[in-house]
Amino acid sequence: MSNRYINPSGFAENLPAEQLVENKLKDAFKLEAERYGYVPLETSAVEYMDTLASKGDINKEIYTIGRALEEGDSDEAQRGLHFDLTVPFARYVAQNQGELSFPFRRYQIQKVWRGERPQKGRFREFYQADIDVVGQQNLPIHFDAEVATVMARILTSFGIGSVTMHINNRKLLCGLIESCSITSSSEVLQLIDKTDKIGVDDVVRLLGEEHQVEEAAARSLFEKIGQSIPQSEVASFLDSIAAESELLQAGVDELREVFSALPVVEACTFVLNPQIARGLDYYTGTVYETTVDGYEKYGSICSGGRYADLASRFTSQELPGVGLSIGLTRLLSVIKGEGLLDFSKKTTSDVMMCLLSDDMRSATLAAADELRQAGKAVEVNLKTSVALGKQLNLAETRGIPYAVVVEQDGNYTLYRIEGEKQIFDSLESLTQSLN
Amino acid sequence: MSNRYINPSGFAENLPAEQLVENKLKDAFKLEAERYGYVPLETSAVEYMDTLASKGDINKEIYTIGRALEEGDSDEAQRGLHFDLTVPFARYVAQNQGELSFPFRRYQIQKVWRGERPQKGRFREFYQADIDVVGQQNLPIHFDAEVATVMARILTSFGIGSVTMHINNRKLLCGLIESCSITSSSEVLQLIDKTDKIGVDDVVRLLGEEHQVEEAAARSLFEKIGQSIPQSEVASFLDSIAAESELLQAGVDELREVFSALPVVEACTFVLNPQIARGLDYYTGTVYETTVDGYEKYGSICSGGRYADLASRFTSQELPGVGLSIGLTRLLSVIKGEGLLDFSKKTTSDVMMCLLSDDMRSATLAAADELRQAGKAVEVNLKTSVALGKQLNLAETRGIPYAVVVEQDGNYTLYRIEGEKQIFDSLESLTQSLN
Repeated sequence: MSNRYINPSGFAENLPAEQLVENKLKDAFKLEAERYGYVPLETSAVEYMDTLASKGDINKEIYTIGRALEEGDSDEAQRGLHFDLTVPFARYVAQNQGELSFPFRRYQIQKVWRGERPQKGRFREFYQADIDVVGQQNLPIHFDAEVATVMARILTSFGIGSVTMHINNRKLLCGLIESCSITSSSEVLQLIDKTDKIGVDDVVRLLGEEHQVEEAAARSLFEKIGQSIPQSEVASFLDSIAAESELLQAGVDELREVFSALPVVEACTFVLNPQIARGLDYYTGTVYETTVDGYEKYGSICSGGRYADLASRFTSQELPGVGLSIGLTRLLSVIKGEGLLDFSKKTTSDVMMCLLSDDMRSATLAAADELRQAGKAVEVNLKTSVALGKQLNLAETRGIPYAVVVEQDGNYTLYRIEGEKQIFDSLESLTQSLN
Repeated sequence: MSNRYINPSGFAENLPAEQLVENKLKDAFKLEAERYGYVPLETSAVEYMDTLASKGDINKEIYTIGRALEEGDSDEAQRGLHFDLTVPFARYVAQNQGELSFPFRRYQIQKVWRGERPQKGRFREFYQADIDVVGQQNLPIHFDAEVATVMARILTSFGIGSVTMHINNRKLLCGLIESCSITSSSEVLQLIDKTDKIGVDDVVRLLGEEHQVEEAAARSLFEKIGQSIPQSEVASFLDSIAAESELLQAGVDELREVFSALPVVEACTFVLNPQIARGLDYYTGTVYETTVDGYEKYGSICSGGRYADLASRFTSQELPGVGLSIGLTRLLSVIKGEGLLDFSKKTTSDVMMCLLSDDMRSATLAAADELRQAGKAVEVNLKTSVALGKQLNLAETRGIPYAVVVEQDGNYTLYRIEGEKQIFDSLESLTQSLN
């Protein structure tokens, strides 16, 4: 036996208890997204490299695919595994434009692959869960509020505690930067984006060293952007901004529309955080980051933004969009590490039917089917050679709350894994006591 | 714009209407599997080649993965994408034995990749949906009936019409072959497996040409195995077999146990088909094939069998198992081609909220939220510049049955896409009429 008979390093894999929690998160995601009219979508895991290769600095992480032998698939163009869901989605929308109706709302929960060095919280194969809306030519700003609402509903339905969604607008941030006579280059935005990690003082110093920004200008910028504004104060905050430029005015107007359309979502706080920039170049308006309250140290678990043109590389049709993405595998590892959800169930079974002798087999199978029809998930111990105590232990090990024995005398014995045993003369009365 | 900006040839991808049907099948699969205590499992898509490489004749189809550039992931062992779910499951069970409790029931719905030449019904990236049970050291024959039952429940819950599950046992078939003085080599089994495709006469001829089987012996074999036996006659058929060898007796006994434990499953006919061999070497007992009634020309849509030792390559622990697999992507293409399910819905939305002016925006969003709380999936048209007629057309195009306008006067107008419009003075009364 070779030690190669394990799955490759960095490629995340779950034990059943973890898989059940991951599936719960996926199901909750689907439920909320579909409730808002978001359509499920899956793109092929494999793309032509031409499709994947445009975002220069991520190329080194792409896994290419080839064939073990020369026969079979003879496609000569180089292909690779997708590293996110945004690029494939853009390609899909461009490719299938004629078949889709716009605005096109979709959600997508799929694995992506990145050839990173494995480290805590980083995986080479992991799930992302995205929602996006794409319009043709234009997409009203109100969709920026809708995607935030849907994601807030999704995240709060996970049952992992309260979250804070930090919302900003690139136009506001760039407008404020320029109002301090600083050039809002993408390098400057990336520096400001690091403030949470390295602190204001270091960013001010680096702005001076790398971009010749006077300390006074940098300090006055942080006076304007350094504070998060609670939802109730956003309107007056925006009113207080002197709109010195069209850019700044546009940012103020868009944020006003977004915040006015956000509903109350229990366990989610929306704040305007003027400091949020998001590293990626393609965001042009609203940007989002989300933290789990009390677990801010893990950074944003759900981020995204508005892009002026999703698929300009793939089609001449202008396709503006807005979306948000959860790194589901990473979130699951935080949830597990911090004990935010219960990982004790190793199966979905509600009931284990114990079987002690062959002559009770058919009665036991029939009773199991009746319980299933009553909506219970039931597994049957088909091995008669195992003693009752061991069968009950197995139920306990798996986290199954109930065990049932169909007795020779026609009664049904119910064992509560945490509690007493109880005898019923009918399956109906037993079923009722399970609810 | 390059024509490379499409997804690669042979890598299946759905439009939303198809995706919704695929998801329905997956959800139905999950529901039934979990109802029987089968635990969800996902293995990593990537395996070491040592793990994938043992089944000699399929190697040419394996996709290997590499890196586009030299940086990043520096694992030196060769890795590839899994081509089925059985090999990864075997590796997973061997790797995680200490963490699992046996018998271990699991289901697994995942994409697999094969570098085949694309042709009708063949894909390079496609979903498989498997159930298996694995025991430690032994696994009672009753599990062979259970997996058949669960798959019968799954397939009949798809709503694609009735199905026939053909069950056989390798021991019976080999015993009958040997009782005709023919050697039951795997080549002979593979020839017999082709009978459905090339007919008895050709198989008899080839048995003579390639394996020196006398025509009389071959004909007498087909007299024994040429007929499918309906469930009600299986017991007497098995009684009629003269158990000339231990092998034959074992086959008879096992089939008797399996058929006696099969329940009545509506829209599924179980038959004993003594001719079923299954091509793969690793089956040692029960084997299964399933056809959709009336669509037998597509061959088996769900196959599997019993294996004496799942993971002998990966561990010295004996792990007998039994399982069945659906080629979900291929089945979906049959369902679509034959119109077995409805592909007219392009979204999960029940209701489209139309919006005609900005001053009704917040009332409309609030009404949408109320409908969602009442369990409806609701999408809101956020673009006020679109005329009502066009908004209703959009609902129709997407297959959304209802459209609602929140009127200035406080009333709610309901448009049934197929039918009349109706005015309600409360959202409650409107909601009731949707049910």
